[in-house]
Amino acid sequence: MSAANVLTGAHFVGLERAAGAGASFRAVDAARGVALEPSYFDADDALVASACERAAGAEDAYASTEGRARAAFLRRIAAEIAGLGDALVERVALETALPIARIQTERARTMFQLETFARAVEEGSWVDARIDRADRERKPQPKPDLRAMLRPIGPVAVFGASNFPLAYSVAGGDTASALAVGCPVVVKAHPMHPGTSELVATAIAAAVRATGMPDGVFSMVHGRGHAVGAALVRHSAIAAVGFTGSFAGGSALCRLASARETPIPVFAEMGSVNPVVVLPAALAQRGATIGQAVASSSLLACGQFCTSPGMVLYCDGAGAEDLVEAIRSTFAASPAGVMVHADIRSAYERAAATFAAQAGVRLAAEAAEGDASAPARGRGRVFATDAASTLRSLRLREELYGPALLLVRCRDVSEMEQVVAAMHGHLTATVHGDEADLQQHARLLRSLEKRVGRIVHNGVPTGVEVCAAMQHGGPWPASSDSRFTAVGPRAILRWVRPVAWQDAPQHALPSALRDGNPLGIVRTIDGEVGRL
Amino acid sequence: MSAANVLTGAHFVGLERAAGAGASFRAVDAARGVALEPSYFDADDALVASACERAAGAEDAYASTEGRARAAFLRRIAAEIAGLGDALVERVALETALPIARIQTERARTMFQLETFARAVEEGSWVDARIDRADRERKPQPKPDLRAMLRPIGPVAVFGASNFPLAYSVAGGDTASALAVGCPVVVKAHPMHPGTSELVATAIAAAVRATGMPDGVFSMVHGRGHAVGAALVRHSAIAAVGFTGSFAGGSALCRLASARETPIPVFAEMGSVNPVVVLPAALAQRGATIGQAVASSSLLACGQFCTSPGMVLYCDGAGAEDLVEAIRSTFAASPAGVMVHADIRSAYERAAATFAAQAGVRLAAEAAEGDASAPARGRGRVFATDAASTLRSLRLREELYGPALLLVRCRDVSEMEQVVAAMHGHLTATVHGDEADLQQHARLLRSLEKRVGRIVHNGVPTGVEVCAAMQHGGPWPASSDSRFTAVGPRAILRWVRPVAWQDAPQHALPSALRDGNPLGIVRTIDGEVGRL
Repeated sequence: MSAANVLTGAHFVGLERAAGAGASFRAVDAARGVALEPSYFDADDALVASACERAAGAEDAYASTEGRARAAFLRRIAAEIAGLGDALVERVALETALPIARIQTERARTMFQLETFARAVEEGSWVDARIDRADRERKPQPKPDLRAMLRPIGPVAVFGASNFPLAYSVAGGDTASALAVGCPVVVKAHPMHPGTSELVATAIAAAVRATGMPDGVFSMVHGRGHAVGAALVRHSAIAAVGFTGSFAGGSALCRLASARETPIPVFAEMGSVNPVVVLPAALAQRGATIGQAVASSSLLACGQFCTSPGMVLYCDGAGAEDLVEAIRSTFAASPAGVMVHADIRSAYERAAATFAAQAGVRLAAEAAEGDASAPARGRGRVFATDAASTLRSLRLREELYGPALLLVRCRDVSEMEQVVAAMHGHLTATVHGDEADLQQHARLLRSLEKRVGRIVHNGVPTGVEVCAAMQHGGPWPASSDSRFTAVGPRAILRWVRPVAWQDAPQHALPSALRDGNPLGIVRTIDGEVGRL
Repeated sequence: MSAANVLTGAHFVGLERAAGAGASFRAVDAARGVALEPSYFDADDALVASACERAAGAEDAYASTEGRARAAFLRRIAAEIAGLGDALVERVALETALPIARIQTERARTMFQLETFARAVEEGSWVDARIDRADRERKPQPKPDLRAMLRPIGPVAVFGASNFPLAYSVAGGDTASALAVGCPVVVKAHPMHPGTSELVATAIAAAVRATGMPDGVFSMVHGRGHAVGAALVRHSAIAAVGFTGSFAGGSALCRLASARETPIPVFAEMGSVNPVVVLPAALAQRGATIGQAVASSSLLACGQFCTSPGMVLYCDGAGAEDLVEAIRSTFAASPAGVMVHADIRSAYERAAATFAAQAGVRLAAEAAEGDASAPARGRGRVFATDAASTLRSLRLREELYGPALLLVRCRDVSEMEQVVAAMHGHLTATVHGDEADLQQHARLLRSLEKRVGRIVHNGVPTGVEVCAAMQHGGPWPASSDSRFTAVGPRAILRWVRPVAWQDAPQHALPSALRDGNPLGIVRTIDGEVGRL
């Protein structure tokens, strides 16, 4: 199967294909700068509304499906994605310039995520069933029978990321977690990979048909500007929003959502500097090793990972030169990679120029030009500055999206602490320290903890495990609500709300709450946890 | 001890008393319309900032306390409240006109809530510790060690309710749950019960001293207008907001919080109609009994419970007259109660006039005038209308705060469904139905479920159990985030966020995440749940 034979440029309004409307656009071969077929079109408000109404129409039927049925649906989506074969990998490669091996890994991760959520909802304990039994003899008031569980919040709007065309896009973590718990999904396809999006949407639509899911459980609209996404978030049928992308985009959606007549929750992951703190003893012992590890992590995927380290804090003293030299030489020796889109590269170039223009900042290393024919090539850059300059410039403490690293020289750990105290929220912080370092600088560690979702010890922040103990999301502006994660089985908590039944007869209760535990799930009965 | 000897009109900036600033105001004896001593003063921005900075200063020390220490603190607060004795009850009675027995019950509930949260944090499993162990041999990438748990979000601003001067005010559920997990609290005292607030703040301050908690863990500012609360929510040290009150107040705080440079989560409980649906078979069998139960529930506390039923939906046919007559006669026979404040009563009178002026609405019953000397007396009123009029008037589908009930006559269940479908979110819905009713009208039940946090079968919505299976919070505008509850041990989830540690050495981990489970709590290790 070749992608060119399949792609039509259509939107998906449930299982129906809707032809283009509005202004047209095409994906661009990021490596060669050539526009790709077919043309896609901005959805108009009526089309967005159709997709949302279709989702609302499917809401009740889908919310009442059993976990096993939804698990089969998710697994079928994974199988249909696998069935797209090389055509999908090739289209992703064309639209994003990501290396084939990376795309294959990301596809595997996408399927693993679908399987993870499938397992969770098949097993069923995620509903957090709680039963507090009646005590009709209690004085002065009888105690009623109360039973609560998590229920789907309603249709979810999903905005995919440019840097994860599969794992955080049409069938990515947000879609998979929302579908898992019983929420219909309306995806706004990322305009930088519309063909990839259409292929994956085709796979999901095939899975909807194959497993008999209600039409409307999945829709997808295209759009290049902000209007399509805004119409989606404003539609009254949408109950929550998942977004992965820039601070500008995510914070705009948050504002739109809170200005609705009925405000809705938005989980937006909006970027992160992922600071790396190198403590003195570790620096003295292994400055060069740390430098090389950080530089390699920073250059992965041309600096386009959300957990890419963007700042290194270190103190003057033993090992400092080794650290800096290792970072500089690694960057200088790495030829420019290709970013996923020329627009991303332009933004990187503009941001890098702004960084370079900050007082007290100098360019310490730059990668070779690389293949000049690739319009989206992104050259690695190392900037060097000191703590005082970093404290003076808010811009230096914000994300520079792309293969860039800011080295911040501090006089001592106390100055390092000042820089950390001036930081906003981030997804991760990495600490390189030996036992003495960590014991001595507990206050710095606590200060980092307050500002991030995940603290990495003596490692690199890139490489996000999909597991229960993963926290992917941090204080603003890393994410819009630090109480939730975008990765791991607990990502489903974004799309559910508790509902309680009081004195309901057995037949009026969801099976998860019935006497005898027909689903065999873990429940909490009168405070006791077990498969009761 | 007499309250008059204790009250000073001061704000609490941590353990310091700050004298009045800004415009002054006094509480009013709601039953007699007499202003009470002492004078209170609107906090100015500098004073609000001092309280917030004091909270920020206590944040790290308080977040690092052990659960056992915080449990002792909460229990000491309860003991200090008990120690206020009759002076507290008398002041509450003066400021709110609530009956003594009700105040004693509410005080007991406040202490029970403190004890519930104390038990939860003493036991410790609430941190939801998750450990995914390393697999250094995994291919292609080694798997790191990941450990996550819930950590306090930071200082919480709490706005108490006029209708629960103890249980949802200074030491109420929001304060207790935030303090329990390790968040400092800054309370904005409700201007209708400033003396009650001062007494309870005195108790909390005494508990801070007695248990050696960091100064700044609790502060309280007074203010009559919106400016004080706005300054509090805007302050950069505040990380989350808890509010119980009106839709106007809660939604204004939500807007303020989302317009901050760093938006923060707000859990606002903002009122609810608590519709009651009487299905045909139940109506035919026990219309009068249901009518009397609903009317009594509606009149409790002069209609000032957040779960007070405000609307009854029923179908023409057998039992309908019995239902209506029981409601009318119960209301007509109940003398006017006294509302907590003359301003609340004025708002009730205005709202009742608006209701009466809606097309198709008539006043079906009205309570006797009652004690004319009480300026805050609230007369029970029953309004009657039909489904069509209710569908035409948004106002009829919104809360009428006070002792009022709207009877909505429907042609059939299908018309009932239309009214339900036009409803916004509420805290509760009550269904009266026999087995046949419930089986036949499953679609109506599902429609109710989507719109509320709790569904009561064949009972009344008033009387909120403090237990794990309670859900107190519903879709907008009942609450600002339906994913959380304001009542029960899970109320703490509003004030915590997960933090993950990757490859951290044992000594750098919180004790909840260390090998060997030194706290003996329930944890999830590689997917297995237990005290491992």
